[in-house]
Amino acid sequence: MTVKTMSIQVSTRGNADIVDITDPVAKAVFESGVSDGVATIFTPSSTSGLTTIEFESGCLSDLRRLFDEIVDPERHYSHNARWGDGNGHSHVRASLIGASFTVPVVNKRLTLGTWQQIILIDFDNRSRKRDLVIQLVGE
Amino acid sequence: MTVKTMSIQVSTRGNADIVDITDPVAKAVFESGVSDGVATIFTPSSTSGLTTIEFESGCLSDLRRLFDEIVDPERHYSHNARWGDGNGHSHVRASLIGASFTVPVVNKRLTLGTWQQIILIDFDNRSRKRDLVIQLVGE
Amino acid sequence: MTVKTMSIQVSTRGNADIVDITDPVAKAVFESGVSDGVATIFTPSSTSGLTTIEFESGCLSDLRRLFDEIVDPERHYSHNARWGDGNGHSHVRASLIGASFTVPVVNKRLTLGTWQQIILIDFDNRSRKRDLVIQLVGE
Repeated sequence: MTVKTMSIQVSTRGNADIVDITDPVAKAVFESGVSDGVATIFTPSSTSGLTTIEFESGCLSDLRRLFDEIVDPERHYSHNARWGDGNGHSHVRASLIGASFTVPVVNKRLTLGTWQQIILIDFDNRSRKRDLVIQLVGE
Repeated sequence: MTVKTMSIQVSTRGNADIVDITDPVAKAVFESGVSDGVATIFTPSSTSGLTTIEFESGCLSDLRRLFDEIVDPERHYSHNARWGDGNGHSHVRASLIGASFTVPVVNKRLTLGTWQQIILIDFDNRSRKRDLVIQLVGE
Repeated sequence: MTVKTMSIQVSTRGNADIVDITDPVAKAVFESGVSDGVATIFTPSSTSGLTTIEFESGCLSDLRRLFDEIVDPERHYSHNARWGDGNGHSHVRASLIGASFTVPVVNKRLTLGTWQQIILIDFDNRSRKRDLVIQLVGE
């Protein structure tokens, strides 16, 4: 049994940019030396989140519409009134989606479905470079 | 320390069918040989999700209403326009809820609350058979 | 490799009270004897949830507004009609946010971002004492 902690850097355009991180995560897992165990992917940020989706432009657009409707960036936010950085909606969205994604690894491979990709959604209101933590605990 | 990966199959009716999977998950955990550690339950699909709820018909109906309101299946979805399979809302809902559920195991038992059950929600627009991954990492 | 399971008790005022639990979680992790591995924080309850946020009053207020809008406590809930306890909205909100939070630990420290705190949101309609499970699997 062992623990391997790695990181990947992801460049985003912000504004609900959705980036498919399946390939870099799978590569890090495959090269970690851990064959079976749990992979945790974590974004150490309060304006981005992780989940899965079928990564095709229709789904991405439909998901972004949900965020625009229930957490509309054009409204008043108390965060913006206090700090003036204009990303109050980004914080709310990130809290809703969550900063962690967990997936079992079997034979060095993520147990994702065929049409299921891991995505980073960057809700911040500007482009960012994100350093994600990937940690494997297993054997 | 060891890793045990198992699976359970769940039949659903789709259309936001909510299935209580606590018993089969607890049984798999109890029989795994792992006494203490972390259990990850994962749905390798882009149209279903995992969370917890008090499993009584009122709560299930209230949760389904939320999805019908914020991700209404009767609207236009870009996914449907591209692929014609009519389950655009299913993808958005699944991304929102998430494909993973993680829970500590102590003395071969899930540390769930008394009124807290693990549920699979199948958002797809037809009945499905779902193979869930259950993985224990512990001792 | 080892497994350490601990608990912390958190007093809340209910009604979407948001409590910053970063310090007690970090302390439990630091004192656990596990240097590197995965930390799972779990609320064994069906009316509270865990996520992260920048813990400042503006963000907290903005997040609470989202819940008030999409899961309005003033509406009819089937759960309330059946059980009369008035916390139907609490159950729906808790299912949406989720009962688990997972974060990698490196050198005895949580890999959180600078402006990212771990929060317990108590959605119940009264004050509660919550016993959270903190479990480390690592070395």
